[in-house]
Amino acid sequence: MARTLESLLDRMEIIELLHRYATAIDDHDWARLATCFTPDAVALYGPVLGRREGIAAIEQTCRTSLEPLDASQHIIGTHEIELDGDRARARCYVHAQHTKAGTPGGDNFVIGATYLDQLVRTPDGWRIRERELRMLWQEGNPKVLGG
Amino acid sequence: MARTLESLLDRMEIIELLHRYATAIDDHDWARLATCFTPDAVALYGPVLGRREGIAAIEQTCRTSLEPLDASQHIIGTHEIELDGDRARARCYVHAQHTKAGTPGGDNFVIGATYLDQLVRTPDGWRIRERELRMLWQEGNPKVLGG
Amino acid sequence: MARTLESLLDRMEIIELLHRYATAIDDHDWARLATCFTPDAVALYGPVLGRREGIAAIEQTCRTSLEPLDASQHIIGTHEIELDGDRARARCYVHAQHTKAGTPGGDNFVIGATYLDQLVRTPDGWRIRERELRMLWQEGNPKVLGG
Repeated sequence: MARTLESLLDRMEIIELLHRYATAIDDHDWARLATCFTPDAVALYGPVLGRREGIAAIEQTCRTSLEPLDASQHIIGTHEIELDGDRARARCYVHAQHTKAGTPGGDNFVIGATYLDQLVRTPDGWRIRERELRMLWQEGNPKVLGG
Repeated sequence: MARTLESLLDRMEIIELLHRYATAIDDHDWARLATCFTPDAVALYGPVLGRREGIAAIEQTCRTSLEPLDASQHIIGTHEIELDGDRARARCYVHAQHTKAGTPGGDNFVIGATYLDQLVRTPDGWRIRERELRMLWQEGNPKVLGG
Repeated sequence: MARTLESLLDRMEIIELLHRYATAIDDHDWARLATCFTPDAVALYGPVLGRREGIAAIEQTCRTSLEPLDASQHIIGTHEIELDGDRARARCYVHAQHTKAGTPGGDNFVIGATYLDQLVRTPDGWRIRERELRMLWQEGNPKVLGG
């Protein structure tokens, strides 16, 4: 029973981590973002933003994309987690809205995507060591993100 | 181990409460909505709808906004919960779609927002005693909500 | 305490099942879709797609709808689960985006709906034995789905 409870706790903590990433970047809370990753984590942000290595580079990419906006909202849903001792894989969907009033062509640009994560248990809790973003669809005005 | 399990149960119950609010207002199930709040709860619904004090006033505001529609759907995601004994704080995202066929200018109006909650444990379970709605973005035709 | 833990595990497993259905159909992973249902399950897909009986018929309906697309994304949120021994009822919201580039009139068609499920515990875990889809709203170009 203790092992079962442990596994439930691991799942809940990883789900909370997936959510913490979303609200950290929407709040521009970069100290909190750093609690989502191992220091040497890699983020594969797709063909436009590319590969980012290390938490400083990941933070810089998020700041460049999100700080000029009025608001962003990364709604996370549909998570799947596979535990393997001190490692785990996770996958979740994101509905990422980006808003900037007065953008020529429309104020909103929404991206639907999947995050594919490899995680590791550290003394400070679960951390992402590799995150891949796979785009599924987009709607609205890409110019909101400078596109 | 009992304390850990207790904390997991608290989190699950609060998540269920956040979901129950959403489906209660979408279903116009006002008796069920009352099970989400303390009787003297306060809802801060933003600059348009304002501050509502007490469950009767909260219900009235929801009825006025939602009963004229064909449908609404408050999708809840990305929750974060902070327990502190018999008190808790919660935060979640909402993707709130509002639909009324034949509205001049378009049938849909969607609002992206954050709910920020203060909760209290009561003999009947966790209840919201203060809920603040913070708008993040909107899309579509505000006239669907009479705007 | 063991019973409480059991109930938590049941809820978590059913939530994972609701998510697995979504990613299985989005990935066109039909073997995985089969792990979501009892062999004789019934799906009530609404006025257009109708009633499907048995896992082969359910798979066929999903293939016909989704395989011609570039991508789909069924974001699941706001679940509610009611356990009753070896039976359960579940309800969840879905934000189902469908995408096909170059469709005359627009690349995207999104459906907001509720899944209402009756589930049963089997030797292989929880399975859906009846799923009803209730449409709430739509946005975009129905021609993406051939409509």
